[in-house]
Amino acid sequence: MYFMTNNSPFRYELLHADARTAARLGRLHTPRGIVELPTFMPVGTLGTVKGVDIRRVRETGAQIILANTYHLALRPGEETVAALGDLHAFTGWQGPILTDSGGFQVFSLADRMKVSEEGVEFRSHIDGSKIQLSPERSIAIQEALGSDFIMAFDQVVALPNESSVVEEATWRSVRWAERCQRASRRSDQMLLAIVQGGLDPGLRRRCAHELVAMEFQGYAVGGLSVGEPPAEMYAALDVVVPELPADRPRYLMGVGRPQDLIEGVARGIDMFDCVMPTRNGRNALVFTDAGPVRLRNASHERDRQPIEAGCPCPACEHSRGYLRHLFQSGEMLGPILASIHNLTYYQRLMARAREAIAAGSFAEFRAERMRGWNEPS
Amino acid sequence: MYFMTNNSPFRYELLHADARTAARLGRLHTPRGIVELPTFMPVGTLGTVKGVDIRRVRETGAQIILANTYHLALRPGEETVAALGDLHAFTGWQGPILTDSGGFQVFSLADRMKVSEEGVEFRSHIDGSKIQLSPERSIAIQEALGSDFIMAFDQVVALPNESSVVEEATWRSVRWAERCQRASRRSDQMLLAIVQGGLDPGLRRRCAHELVAMEFQGYAVGGLSVGEPPAEMYAALDVVVPELPADRPRYLMGVGRPQDLIEGVARGIDMFDCVMPTRNGRNALVFTDAGPVRLRNASHERDRQPIEAGCPCPACEHSRGYLRHLFQSGEMLGPILASIHNLTYYQRLMARAREAIAAGSFAEFRAERMRGWNEPS
Ligand SMILES: [Zn+2]
Ligand SMILES: [Zn+2]
Repeated sequence: MYFMTNNSPFRYELLHADARTAARLGRLHTPRGIVELPTFMPVGTLGTVKGVDIRRVRETGAQIILANTYHLALRPGEETVAALGDLHAFTGWQGPILTDSGGFQVFSLADRMKVSEEGVEFRSHIDGSKIQLSPERSIAIQEALGSDFIMAFDQVVALPNESSVVEEATWRSVRWAERCQRASRRSDQMLLAIVQGGLDPGLRRRCAHELVAMEFQGYAVGGLSVGEPPAEMYAALDVVVPELPADRPRYLMGVGRPQDLIEGVARGIDMFDCVMPTRNGRNALVFTDAGPVRLRNASHERDRQPIEAGCPCPACEHSRGYLRHLFQSGEMLGPILASIHNLTYYQRLMARAREAIAAGSFAEFRAERMRGWNEPS
Repeated sequence: MYFMTNNSPFRYELLHADARTAARLGRLHTPRGIVELPTFMPVGTLGTVKGVDIRRVRETGAQIILANTYHLALRPGEETVAALGDLHAFTGWQGPILTDSGGFQVFSLADRMKVSEEGVEFRSHIDGSKIQLSPERSIAIQEALGSDFIMAFDQVVALPNESSVVEEATWRSVRWAERCQRASRRSDQMLLAIVQGGLDPGLRRRCAHELVAMEFQGYAVGGLSVGEPPAEMYAALDVVVPELPADRPRYLMGVGRPQDLIEGVARGIDMFDCVMPTRNGRNALVFTDAGPVRLRNASHERDRQPIEAGCPCPACEHSRGYLRHLFQSGEMLGPILASIHNLTYYQRLMARAREAIAAGSFAEFRAERMRGWNEPS
């Protein structure tokens, strides 16, 4: 079963819809190959997945990576990236790349910000220089970077917040999405709109309606995983996902823990990204089927076990005792190996989720994984 | 042509002696495989080659690595290493490992040191705890670590220094070497003595004579590359190497730049180690046949060239512009990739030196390399 979107070289293919959950197995056809869905995208903020060389990123099983428009526009600048080829030549990643729009970073990192209908004016968090970002400018940067998936520029507000503030930002984001759609000219890039609306179900639903009517090629759910309890995030997905067209990919931005990924998949999400595997890895926290392991814990001093038996990653060639030693000694290799293990864990988790959906056993897989993660370790 | 040393499982095999220099092509047979000589040993101070996972270390072409007795004894302690298997299980390196004796580190890193004929008492540079090291204790630690090549414990003095101080330390080191020989019991470890003597040719020669008479399985030249001009180091080699037995391996400790390796090979040295590839790599300085390249230099901002065309390492998959961006942004991947390139460069240099000796063209190779390194870049 194929769904075509205009004459785009991008195509979402549904392979199997789970009978007992909203989980779906699919494929995203792109000019740079197929992405199996659901998928997890490692985050390469500045054009590097922190601490992991691109060959190792490939080895984790990743099929698509993410980079940040805001960070790259500030350093080294999109013109320098373009002068060096494009984001693929720059990073050495020949598969598909998704760039965010910069909206989230502007509203969380920039200093002294002024928002108007036109866009945002702010000061760089690096050197304080004055910068403007607008829907058109965000698209222009993403076109210069040459990513394959680009995101609409949106206004992000902190949560919780006054409903009038959330509402205003939501409708402004919808108007900005329309401007992004008009500004976007490259047919080899797929633009995704972002559903906002905070934790207000009605607003989320109306926002989704508006954006769906505008016929984007894909839809993201934004503004979640910003500190709210997981149950509220899942509730927002329960509201939004059914409003989205079944023939287009759905991306839950910035999420999350392994259990959040599985819960997202169960609600029909196809794409995820999160800094957690690398950020936690740098802090000596690694993921396993039996829950997270703190490698700095003294109990691992003479622990001959690998992080996880059967894991093919270069970290699991070593004992937990060795990895603990690396962290205790401040050796770079500790963060490197823990990051690689966590990225490998996330990719294997998604691969197992895909297999379970295909086998009709996703509900059992989900229950089994939740039991493992919640066991006291 | 085979030279056997007692019933040791270690065996030095001379394959080809260069006609125009003292360079020699050989093989070191060990219980953990063959090391082709001349060889460069990457330094894994704390059981990790800084920033480079062990699979990547193998990929550089390294055949033997080095670890530091002093550092490992302090952290995590040789008993913890032994509890986790041995140094091979700990590091994941299944090939031969050489451990130094701790002498050099005690005399350069430790605080408040007291030297007696018995040994050294000092305070740890990490936590100030009081530690004693002696020839017997150094061997016991190296036996617990389970390395394949172990070094005699020696007294190192700063240079330049009063001749009486240098002389006393030299003869004490000889007496300590004898104690190490008596203390060493594992037949699967090969003990190397260290020729000291500062920059005094007569003392160096007499020290070598004494140690050679004691029939060690291999000989190191120590106390060089401590700040003296390269010409003085080469002059010391010209004096010492002819005194060493032709049927045993010769190791020049802590050396050095690519040109020092080639000059050492030309003088009959078989083994080298140095932190330079990784330390310089972390500081954005990378080695090429046309001399060192400073990746932070603004001239590389939009430089599409790799560090070195034809280099198979993961760094050379990228442009210099990308690598510069990583360093400018403080990304871990900069030091990682630059370290891997430098280690790869050193291994390829040694491989080319071996090929040149085999082909009878080492003198031409040496001249050609020196021209490249000395060109203004
Ligand atoms: Zn692993
Ligand atoms: Zn290279």
